[in-house]
This record gives sequence, C-alpha cells and structure tokens, in this order.
Amino acid sequence: MKDISISNRATNTPASAIRKLVPLADNAKKKGISVYHLNIGQPDLPTPSEIRQNIKKFDQPTIEYAPSTGMLETREAWQKFYQDKGINFDVADINVTSGGSEGLIFAFFTVADPGSELIVFEPFYTSYAIIAAMGNIKLVPIRTRVEEGFHLPPKDIIEKAITSKTAGIVVCNPNNPTGTVYTDSEVKLLAEIVHKHNLFIISDETYQELVFDGKKVLPFASFENLSAQLIIVDSVSKRFNSCGVRVGAVVSKNKEVMSSVLRFAQSRLSVATVEQLAVVSMLRNHKKYVDSIKKIYEQRRNTVVRELRKIPGVAAVAPEGAFYIIPKIPVSDSDDFAAFLLNDFSDSGETVMIAPATGFYATRGLGMNEIRIAYVLEDKKLRRAVELLGIALEKYKTRKS
Amino acid sequence: MKDISISNRATNTPASAIRKLVPLADNAKKKGISVYHLNIGQPDLPTPSEIRQNIKKFDQPTIEYAPSTGMLETREAWQKFYQDKGINFDVADINVTSGGSEGLIFAFFTVADPGSELIVFEPFYTSYAIIAAMGNIKLVPIRTRVEEGFHLPPKDIIEKAITSKTAGIVVCNPNNPTGTVYTDSEVKLLAEIVHKHNLFIISDETYQELVFDGKKVLPFASFENLSAQLIIVDSVSKRFNSCGVRVGAVVSKNKEVMSSVLRFAQSRLSVATVEQLAVVSMLRNHKKYVDSIKKIYEQRRNTVVRELRKIPGVAAVAPEGAFYIIPKIPVSDSDDFAAFLLNDFSDSGETVMIAPATGFYATRGLGMNEIRIAYVLEDKKLRRAVELLGIALEKYKTRKS
Repeated sequence: MKDISISNRATNTPASAIRKLVPLADNAKKKGISVYHLNIGQPDLPTPSEIRQNIKKFDQPTIEYAPSTGMLETREAWQKFYQDKGINFDVADINVTSGGSEGLIFAFFTVADPGSELIVFEPFYTSYAIIAAMGNIKLVPIRTRVEEGFHLPPKDIIEKAITSKTAGIVVCNPNNPTGTVYTDSEVKLLAEIVHKHNLFIISDETYQELVFDGKKVLPFASFENLSAQLIIVDSVSKRFNSCGVRVGAVVSKNKEVMSSVLRFAQSRLSVATVEQLAVVSMLRNHKKYVDSIKKIYEQRRNTVVRELRKIPGVAAVAPEGAFYIIPKIPVSDSDDFAAFLLNDFSDSGETVMIAPATGFYATRGLGMNEIRIAYVLEDKKLRRAVELLGIALEKYKTRKS
Repeated sequence: MKDISISNRATNTPASAIRKLVPLADNAKKKGISVYHLNIGQPDLPTPSEIRQNIKKFDQPTIEYAPSTGMLETREAWQKFYQDKGINFDVADINVTSGGSEGLIFAFFTVADPGSELIVFEPFYTSYAIIAAMGNIKLVPIRTRVEEGFHLPPKDIIEKAITSKTAGIVVCNPNNPTGTVYTDSEVKLLAEIVHKHNLFIISDETYQELVFDGKKVLPFASFENLSAQLIIVDSVSKRFNSCGVRVGAVVSKNKEVMSSVLRFAQSRLSVATVEQLAVVSMLRNHKKYVDSIKKIYEQRRNTVVRELRKIPGVAAVAPEGAFYIIPKIPVSDSDDFAAFLLNDFSDSGETVMIAPATGFYATRGLGMNEIRIAYVLEDKKLRRAVELLGIALEKYKTRKS
C-alpha cells in the first residue's frame, strides 16, 4: 500500500521565511555561538508594565471562554484606539483576533474563494503566502524594487494585474518587510483603483504609527466611499511590544464581512481571555507610548542604514517606517548565505541571523541578493550585528571563490 | 455597480449552533431575565489555582513570541501527559495550538483539499462544519441515533461512505455533542477500517478521561499500525476547566503531517506565551485533578438524566462521558424552540439557553426534535434549569396549539 499522503494544499504551503531557519540557529546556539536575531520582528523593548500588571490582576475564579467577537471591553478599547486617530467605528465593526495573523486568515478567507486572486506588492509579508496556500488563493504579485525604495509602480501596471478573479488588494503600510511608507498619492491611487474595480482592500495596519521623519500614514479609513470595501487587520504586537500576547482585530464597516469574520471566529471559539483584558488600558491610551517607541526605532533605523552602507557591495535605501529594511547584498543566493551565517560562520563566538528575502517574493528568482533585517535590538547590539554581517559577507565571498 | 460580495466559502460557512443565539440571550438579560447557560461547554468549576497562580508568576520583561511549534516546556508537558496515560510520543510529534479548535483547523487542512471528503458521525461538534466550509472540504455524515445512544452503525454502513475522495474519518470519543463513549469494539472497528482503506483518523480527544461508570476509552494511539494515519487533537480546556486559556495540541507520529502543521502554525506565529507556561505543571501531573472533576460530572449526568426523564415527551439516553446530552424533545423545530426560550419565555424571571441540535447535523431536517445540553452547572442550578425546560415545553405546546 502506498504511504498515506497529506493534502496538496499542505504540500504547497511554504515555510515562513522568518522562522524556517530556526533549527539552524538552535544548532549554532548548541555549539556555544551567540546569535543576534535580526530575522524576526521581536523587539527587545520591554512590554509596558501596565500590560504585565493587568495580566497579574486577573482574579476571576474561572478563566472562561470569551465571546467569539472578542470581549466587549476589548472591542470598545479598539474603538477608542481608532477614535484617538480620528476614525469612527462601531463596536459591531470590530472583531478581536489572536494577533494580526489570525485577522489576516479571516480576511483572506472572507474575500477569496479557492482560485480567487489577491494582489500583493512583492516583497510582501511571508505569512500572506502561507495563508493563501492554506486557502487555495492565488497571490498575484506586483513587483516593487529596492532602487525605488519599494514604492508602488504606476497605475497602469497595477491595473494590468486585475482580472475577473481578483477579489482584492492586500496592502501593509508602513510595509513589512520593506519599511516603505506609501505616500498620500500612493494611498489615493490604491483607493481610486479598488473603488473603480470594486475590489476589497485588506489593509494590514500593524505598524501604522511607526512612521519616521515627521511623516504620517494616510489611512484608508479616511475614504468614506470605501467603507464597504475596506477590511483593516490590526494588532497590539508591535506598537505595544506585546508579540506574545496575541491580540489583534479585524475591522470593517461591511456587515457581510463582519458576519463572515464572526462565523470563522466561532470555529476557534475565542481569544485568550486574560490577554484581552490586559491590553484594554493601553489601547484606550496609546499615543504617548507609541510615540516613545517610534523615536527609538527611528534612531535604530539611522544606525542600521549608516552601518549597512559601510559594507562594500551593500545597497540600503533608508526605510520610512516600521522596523524592517531590505538591503541588497553582494550574494547570489540569500538562502545559502543565511544558512552559512548559522552553520559555518562565527566571529568571537558570535553570529547573526537574518531572513533571506526570497521568502518575501512570490516570483521565483527574486530576492536572491536581498535579505530582510528587523532592527529590533538596542543600538550597540545592532551595530555589532551589522558588523558581523559585513565580516560574514567577506568570508562568504572567499569561501565561494 | 453591484455591491461587493464576500466569498462563497464565507457565505456557506454556518454559524455555530452553540453561539449563534448569543444576541437573543443578551436581549433577554437586558430585560432582566436570568439565563441558565446549558448551551455551551463552559463549566462553572473554578480553573485550578495552580494555573491562575502560574499566570501571575510570569515575570519576563518582554512577552515575546513563542516558537510556532509551541514552547519546549509546554511540548514536553504534553509528552508527559501522554506518558502518564501509557502513550509515548516524541516532542517532535507535538505542536501546541490555540485550543483544540485551532488543532482541528490544522488537522482538517493537512489531510483534505478543496473537494476532499471527511467522514463524520452525526450529530457532530458544530465547529467541524465551520472548519470544513472554510476549507471547502465536504463533510460526509454517517447518522447515529438517539435510540441507540448514538453508538456507531455496523461496518458496512461506514464503509459505504468511503469514496476515492475520502481523506479521513473524524472521531470524538467521548463524544461532543452526544456524550457517547465508543466501546473498545467500536474503536477497533474504526481502526480496522482506516487501516484497510488507508485513511487518516483525526481523533478529537478533548474529553478523553471524562468517562463514567468506571469505563475507559481505548485510545487510537494504542494501535501501532496506525501511527502514520493518526492525528490527535487535544486541549486543556475541559479537563482543566481552562476554556479561556486557549492551549491545545496536535499530535502525530507522521512527520509529513507535523511539517504541515508547523507551516500552518507559522502563519499565526504563536500561541499566547503566558498561558503556554501556565498549564505546564497541570499537564505534567493531571490525573488527580481530572479524576476529581470526572466524579462531579458523573453526578451531574445522573441529575440531568433523572430530571429530563421527568418531563413528558422527553427521551434521554444516559451519556457515558464528556458533559453533554442530546435528549429528544416534543417539538418539531428545535431552533424555533431555542429562540422561544430566550425571546418569549421566563419563569420567575429566569430562563434557560440550550443549543438546537440541528446545528450538529449535516443532513438537513435532522435534529429538529433534539437539543444539546451541556451539564456544566452545579446540581441545584442544573435541576432548576431542567425544570425551566419542562415548564417552557409545556408553554411552547400551548402557544403552538
């Protein structure tokens, strides 16, 4: 009898570009090598003590299921969060999710059937590819380029990607993995296109306030004519340094969308009760804290760009937000180089882990000479980590020639 | 321009039979009516203080992402949990999930493509239908009957449901929603069938130790020839009264399955870090606590069956495990009756919420004269809740005639 086999969708689901090299990092650590993690958006900053204290304050005798919509307190807190940014949503427009990731799953599955297409700008967040594969959704990538700071191509290029199967466009602004902040004109262009072609726009707003140089993101929610088409996916992970808390939200004024999200949400019953309550106070009063970490990331951005530019053959366009950068590096196979860093390299007992950029592209062959760096370490460590990258690139070149 | 529409899969996804009437219950409560919740498996028993204390003990400055596999401590704790039941798994066979629900999603999607079939015994847990719809998987129901205590039909009936598209069989033992515990012969029969036809078996073991009358479940893990085919979905929710903690697991010795589960798991990054650590000690030492609550549910089972049988026209077969029962009741539309209980009925300011059984069947028209009761309240409340059901049935009859 033949071996039993898993589904095609499971076979076709890629591993996370960010997490697939974890076993190699574990091996390096077993050999006593310290690893600087620039591969994953896990900042070293402490979680606000308010959230940690709120977790300790939970004092109900039974930790019960929350409603599938999320707890009322938490939904109202998200509502207040948007209000403080000048955007009005009803509580009914908000469903709490287990991080932004689960929100993406619900949003993708709500708009797209097997065979449907979602337009993404590549490089894009690696989870989009995993979720699309799980749902048999086709990602249609539109290329953006390091030389252009990964800004959007002109209207005709975007419109050319639209077919009768296109369900929507997925946008992350500020962008993970590029750190690009789309300009007001770019946002308006996308708004115009989705309106004209009657598409959904899935707006991943995980990093929305983390914008540098005094700039601001123009939110899709400010376009009133898009209210039936806009689905926001949001998260507390990055803005509150609470990645392991797993609280996010899907937000839309489209009642059919929210009904779908709720029914999907019922399949997983609820989001962890203690954490939902723990983030309420921060959501209700987010500005001061988020401003404070924005300054920190802006400083780190300056450091990482300056240090990267010291390395021969590296091209780095300064990112405008979030805490990622995709530099071009002088290698022809970034996956091989990423593995080299963990398997075959160390300097004074240290190495650095990065995410090869190939995993952020849907088009085969792209990203081979690019990596994603998350600048989530304090200044001194960040400088050393980039220095290690430079030393490793030199050694890698010698090894190869 | 036509309104923008959601995907067909979203449109076809049913609402949870257990949760869809929540808005009606909220309305009843707004009118000042107390609602006894027999609709949802949310026990009133306290969460063990050990888990609640462990949550307070978390003292790392940053609440970081956990690995997508789950934290090593938590996976080892699940390993120990199975060891204590005489079953050996490697840590690599275990992936922590956000409750059993997420494990079901990963398991269904791992074995079944759009158009693939999964055999279920109806009535079945309502989330199976939601997850199948999300993944465009066809559930093929095999009917079990209240008169037979919802035990399995003979081999030929089960085999007749198998087609070239069948990916596997989903079994929940003890069963939610029926409380049936499949006998050793039934388990052996299923083991024989899946082995013969080379199918996956997805074993939902959320309630495994909650078996009454001194009986025990024969676990599928005891069949060594099934190791490549068996996928266990497990959860701390019920055995530790920790529904809102959201920790579960997918367990399989099939490496291809576990690779798929991990890639799916990477799409949602991780399960809440604090909770993963909080359940470790209970998982490592579960027996005493689980035995203690088993006794409580056995007592409640006796109460609910005795009280139900007092109601004219109600037929109740005593369930053998878990904490659910599906009685037959003298109505022709259990959905309408469930709504009546919340909209149009109260006795001394009280009513009762139950789950209409229609939502646990895939075959249209079945379950119209059945309801699911979760006996998750203390004895006195349980007696009053069943009494309310009796009074309501009487009033409902009058209203209807």
